Amino acid sequence: MKKSIGDSNFIEKSMAYSSITNSKMIRAGIIVASGRINKNIHYDSLLTLATAVELIHTYSLIHDDLPSMDDDDFRRGKQSSHIKFGEANAILTGDALQALAYEVICDDTKLNSDNKIEAIKLISNACGKNGMVLGQHLDIESESKDLNIKDIDNIYSLKTGRLIECSVMLGQINNNDDKIKKILYSFGKKIGLAFQITDDILEATSDQNTLGKNNNSDLKNNKSTYIKVTGLKEAKSKSHELSFSAIKSLDELKMTETNMLIELAKYISYREK
Amino acid sequence: MKKSIGDSNFIEKSMAYSSITNSKMIRAGIIVASGRINKNIHYDSLLTLATAVELIHTYSLIHDDLPSMDDDDFRRGKQSSHIKFGEANAILTGDALQALAYEVICDDTKLNSDNKIEAIKLISNACGKNGMVLGQHLDIESESKDLNIKDIDNIYSLKTGRLIECSVMLGQINNNDDKIKKILYSFGKKIGLAFQITDDILEATSDQNTLGKNNNSDLKNNKSTYIKVTGLKEAKSKSHELSFSAIKSLDELKMTETNMLIELAKYISYREK
Repeated sequence: MKKSIGDSNFIEKSMAYSSITNSKMIRAGIIVASGRINKNIHYDSLLTLATAVELIHTYSLIHDDLPSMDDDDFRRGKQSSHIKFGEANAILTGDALQALAYEVICDDTKLNSDNKIEAIKLISNACGKNGMVLGQHLDIESESKDLNIKDIDNIYSLKTGRLIECSVMLGQINNNDDKIKKILYSFGKKIGLAFQITDDILEATSDQNTLGKNNNSDLKNNKSTYIKVTGLKEAKSKSHELSFSAIKSLDELKMTETNMLIELAKYISYREK
Repeated sequence: MKKSIGDSNFIEKSMAYSSITNSKMIRAGIIVASGRINKNIHYDSLLTLATAVELIHTYSLIHDDLPSMDDDDFRRGKQSSHIKFGEANAILTGDALQALAYEVICDDTKLNSDNKIEAIKLISNACGKNGMVLGQHLDIESESKDLNIKDIDNIYSLKTGRLIECSVMLGQINNNDDKIKKILYSFGKKIGLAFQITDDILEATSDQNTLGKNNNSDLKNNKSTYIKVTGLKEAKSKSHELSFSAIKSLDELKMTETNMLIELAKYISYREK
């Protein structure tokens, strides 16, 4: 029976609406793929970390879509959270998703506390004031300004790249091999940037039905994008170069278990949605 | 020199604007006061936990003040974050404050990882979908509805009480004495509710200059408050009863170190701002 003061499960429902839905789950895939070359983490814990990062990513999409931000009313093939549930609830839903991300890591049964703290530190650092949030701020501030490629690289690396790098590194929790970590960090930086450039390309060349989100958002908000500065051909070639270079850098590891990361790096740059 | 794409320190500045300012720091005080009866935690770590909770509390104030929520333009004696920095930046600032709360706990140098996870679990649980966020949702949903006292108690316990209870329990991190913890948990629940009832009383009887925040917010948003349902006299007496009962429950501990908690419980109920 619904309580007179409102539905106690409303926030859980709105969290599920945006997170358990049609999503590529790229960040989750990266964590699992990275974890394949780490003998010191249980598969169940990779899924915990994948869940945490997808919750963070979903919170960021809900907040980015708000009218005061990018004002997008369509996401993951359906109405954005604020269209469906109202603006206040969308903000609260994002807030609760962020808290839940840390809670699910605390509740993992196979990571030890040192590993959990390592993971929480990676995520909170990647998504906060020196990472994703700063990138989103700079992105909004850049509206109607003419940016050069260096500025755009910086924004993309912060708003999108940091959480993707972080996903690669989360697969390496409890691995003390610094050489592997260094190579994977650089791999993560490259595919992070490639991912966002490909997003630009798709926004310019695909349609709302295929993408499941508005494909005129950057244009509407008068944002500087890779395509606007370099043209479509250059942007494609930059994304492919980054993906190729990321894949090449894995050669040094001489491990067949990198195959899933290689497939993901290709997908990130050559995907069609 | 300011970068062309915007100020990389902007988000840090807006975080500081709302958090390093005129605040009662009640939650921080509660953590330190509770920690006085816990021999197993270093004072520096109490300050870490106090910082984390004040960052969470500040993020919640910034988001609660937004136009789509309580729409309050004055907070802590100055313009609310969204008035000062715009709505998008206020949302982002709150998001970054939440992330930073977890990050500062990870960076503490005296707690071990088990203790840190215990703290992060307490906080993420208290502020998320089953705690503060749910309370804020129910609070907004309750606008223009006539609630009974049971409903109001529930909303107050969630939106305000949970983080105050959590603050009491954070002072007990690394303490394995379940008897002490049980008593303090009940103490925390009582002062949490007393705190919010006193907030109602002050909003009705004080002024904006004294409070440092709008004192017509509940009226404007047509919210059911204690005073609206029970009248001012009853509300005061309920707050004092809760505070008295909380203090009384500490007797069983027979510890002089509870003195700071007793003073805080009195202050919470008898404060004038």
